[in-house]
Amino acid sequence: MSLTRRVFLQRIAQIGGYSAAFATMQALGLMPAVGQSPLPQLPADFGKGKKIIILGAGIAGMTAAYELRKAGFDCTILEARNRPGGRNWTVRDGTKVEFTDGTIQNCDWQDGGYLNAGPARIPSIHTHILGYCQELGVRLEVEVNTSRSALMQSPKLNHGDPVQQRQVVHDTRGYLAELLSKAINKHTLDHELSKEETARLLEFLQNFGDLNKDGRYTGTPRAGFITGPGAGPVNPVLHKPLNFSELLAADMSTGEFYEEQIDWQATMFQPIGGMDRIAYGFANSLGDMIHYECPVTEITTSGQSVTVAYTKSGTPQTISADFCICTLPLPILAKTKNNFSPETQQAFTGMPMVPLYKIAWQSPRFWEKENNIYGGISFLKDKVDLVWYPTDKLFSPTGVLVAGFNSEQELIGGLGGTTTGKLSSFGALPTIEAKFEASRQAVELLHPGRSHLLTKPIYVAWAKIPYSLGCLANNFVSGSAPAYAQLEKPEGKTYFAGDYLSHLVAWQEGAVLSAHHAIERIAKQMQT
Amino acid sequence: MSLTRRVFLQRIAQIGGYSAAFATMQALGLMPAVGQSPLPQLPADFGKGKKIIILGAGIAGMTAAYELRKAGFDCTILEARNRPGGRNWTVRDGTKVEFTDGTIQNCDWQDGGYLNAGPARIPSIHTHILGYCQELGVRLEVEVNTSRSALMQSPKLNHGDPVQQRQVVHDTRGYLAELLSKAINKHTLDHELSKEETARLLEFLQNFGDLNKDGRYTGTPRAGFITGPGAGPVNPVLHKPLNFSELLAADMSTGEFYEEQIDWQATMFQPIGGMDRIAYGFANSLGDMIHYECPVTEITTSGQSVTVAYTKSGTPQTISADFCICTLPLPILAKTKNNFSPETQQAFTGMPMVPLYKIAWQSPRFWEKENNIYGGISFLKDKVDLVWYPTDKLFSPTGVLVAGFNSEQELIGGLGGTTTGKLSSFGALPTIEAKFEASRQAVELLHPGRSHLLTKPIYVAWAKIPYSLGCLANNFVSGSAPAYAQLEKPEGKTYFAGDYLSHLVAWQEGAVLSAHHAIERIAKQMQT
Repeated sequence: MSLTRRVFLQRIAQIGGYSAAFATMQALGLMPAVGQSPLPQLPADFGKGKKIIILGAGIAGMTAAYELRKAGFDCTILEARNRPGGRNWTVRDGTKVEFTDGTIQNCDWQDGGYLNAGPARIPSIHTHILGYCQELGVRLEVEVNTSRSALMQSPKLNHGDPVQQRQVVHDTRGYLAELLSKAINKHTLDHELSKEETARLLEFLQNFGDLNKDGRYTGTPRAGFITGPGAGPVNPVLHKPLNFSELLAADMSTGEFYEEQIDWQATMFQPIGGMDRIAYGFANSLGDMIHYECPVTEITTSGQSVTVAYTKSGTPQTISADFCICTLPLPILAKTKNNFSPETQQAFTGMPMVPLYKIAWQSPRFWEKENNIYGGISFLKDKVDLVWYPTDKLFSPTGVLVAGFNSEQELIGGLGGTTTGKLSSFGALPTIEAKFEASRQAVELLHPGRSHLLTKPIYVAWAKIPYSLGCLANNFVSGSAPAYAQLEKPEGKTYFAGDYLSHLVAWQEGAVLSAHHAIERIAKQMQT
Repeated sequence: MSLTRRVFLQRIAQIGGYSAAFATMQALGLMPAVGQSPLPQLPADFGKGKKIIILGAGIAGMTAAYELRKAGFDCTILEARNRPGGRNWTVRDGTKVEFTDGTIQNCDWQDGGYLNAGPARIPSIHTHILGYCQELGVRLEVEVNTSRSALMQSPKLNHGDPVQQRQVVHDTRGYLAELLSKAINKHTLDHELSKEETARLLEFLQNFGDLNKDGRYTGTPRAGFITGPGAGPVNPVLHKPLNFSELLAADMSTGEFYEEQIDWQATMFQPIGGMDRIAYGFANSLGDMIHYECPVTEITTSGQSVTVAYTKSGTPQTISADFCICTLPLPILAKTKNNFSPETQQAFTGMPMVPLYKIAWQSPRFWEKENNIYGGISFLKDKVDLVWYPTDKLFSPTGVLVAGFNSEQELIGGLGGTTTGKLSSFGALPTIEAKFEASRQAVELLHPGRSHLLTKPIYVAWAKIPYSLGCLANNFVSGSAPAYAQLEKPEGKTYFAGDYLSHLVAWQEGAVLSAHHAIERIAKQMQT
């Protein structure tokens, strides 16, 4: 920062205090920008006398109600389930997991173990959902997304024996640094780099790859030890570097780059006790504004008002209002009677749904005692390709291990990537038992001799969960753009909202910002 | 893992249970090895009738007493200070920081804020100190060592304006991947790589650097956004990549590789409430075995016994025992009267002491609110070259910010590197006020307009702390090897122990393993 700018900011801080300097820095572009909220500042009586029906008590719907109430609107939320949160769903002792095909699983995990079946992490850059946690008094703890002691396993690497993530990461870096150093020393890149830059880059690579003085990679303490450093005369012995050709063939890049995707970068958080602490935080605040077990049967909208038909304990009911914010999932909307335009009706099937699943087990925490793995994720190349260790209650006797979290259809580019529409090798498994067996096998490949310790499996397949019928609307693919644009438009007095109308699909932050955006549009319509 | 090996292990698990399979896996080399403890399993009456004097109630001394008591020894610990822990020292409201030159600072931080003046982190691979935390009931929480939202600042980069760590890390990776891809496409490395490996490596690099389809680096979401992804029609805008030549000139590698050093890798822990929870955990267990305010004045050792002279409230005392475990810091030993061999006396000055310091301030947590930084470290190139954010009580109003943690002498290779013996630019600052000003300036460079929020600074300079007179004995340098070897040898019935006699110097794990090693040697001597 130039001296002038710094002096300027100090002045601002002296005159206007903390907030003024903050706003000024944002205006100057000196602050890290995050997803900007379009939530307008509305007077407390702005919505006086106006009724709003909100469909769905997920994060988008509850955020909308929470903010609209502040602006004086009269809000009613209709929720099909008997609980708030939607995909923000924590499975624990007493939870019944019911599929659309009639399969029922009853969870009876002990010691407070839980599975966040939907969102399970909050990155520190998702400032709005973090802000609501503060407002609602939801206590957070650090979620460990990366452990360098976590494992990687491929039949093409190290005879199929699992290796530590630190070995894959640092051996790969070592070889990359050695190759680039060689290329530079052959003067291949002389056109790209000045002499000074070349010298600096060679020094950097030495450090990046922990190369020896000849520029060769021969192993690094960063990749860990066979005999660790101890006391007395015994010297530590490094892991022998993994074979580079095997590393390339095994291609563990999904696991290597996972933690570096923007929304997975440290620091991440989780609510203490389960993600649904946020859902219940909102619900407790909203009280009887939320009507549970009220599935919507028809939406009739116009330029003047909206009427929603639903059932309550099986009895048909209707409700009318000045506005509707509809946060129902697209597959539900596609099946719900409505008087929307054909373009909007078509848009409900215009984004492919990604059928994500999770499988979780109760288990003694052998990964902590035997492998020093505390949180983080191990990766492998089997039908089930990741095993995610719990961050809650570290060092306690048992925990809930997620062995399987992915799409049941083939994905290109990992979670959040493009769905091919074809079943994945996991998705093709014919029975729930076969799926549990694949999950157990993944743990066995990573932790030989340990998978027999896993008990009480729970399988959540979002495509089979009533009132969801899928996990995320894949708006990453270009084919989804027309539907995204169409659903941006209101249908009369009905506005659509949900994570699928954000660039943060499948994140609670996307749901929050989408709710803010719906309020922004309603306020604009009221003001014109 | 081969099928045979897996079947074999399953058999072992079935027959011998959990622990048998665990031991077998360790024997087969399938388990990650960590610092091995040489602690012998001793019968409960092994030390019956034997007296041991332990000098110093730091982690090494208290570990020794804790284990020797289990084996029936009669232990007495002499501690010069009025508290246990040695360098395991947590400064908080009420702590008096007194230097050898008479300078006194009184800490009066609010809201439970604290500074771990010595060790402040426990990596998950330091299994023995973690084990004692379990045994002693010390509650741990995750320590966040890395935040990708933390900052980096250099006058040579981005006009001196701070950038996010994610920008430095991912822009650098992008450029490295682009350069190596170019070199490969020029066939420079055809001798090094088969055709198949070349194809795989190019694909890997595309992913590693997030290159475009032409193999160029043009920015990546991993480096963050100017306009973050939000809801509705607005598209996110990426940071413009930093200039590669500037990145090389700025050389932020200390910060880039920090988290990848083996003992700084995720997952890391800290005791809830301060590192001294471990010290007090041991001390509470050991009770009146520890004699406080008893500085040692003379050690007289022989083949039969040891006599230690000390003062208690200024009154001279002596105590005799069958053995002595001496964990006093080397600079203290060098000044303490003794009858050791000339070789041992010389060894006391045979390892250069690194004069580490920390400076910490109480402050509102502007880094959380404005920069989404929750824990982790920012790096810069000023006199004070790192700012470390608190992990405890995240989201609370105030916290203790460490702005300055390094050596007051020049270090080659970062903390734990080689000391040149020359003063660093920080160490050369003549007054405590100048040091605070340098600390404040570092915060100002990273967080313009914010440093005026810092209050109540505390400066801990280990070289000036009585009964320490330095922080770590630099046994990394080859010149320290003769002293290390000499101090491995007992002087009659006196055994030396402490982190400096381990390959984990300045880590509590090193102190623990060194205490175990002392017990191992004493047990062997008794058995021969």
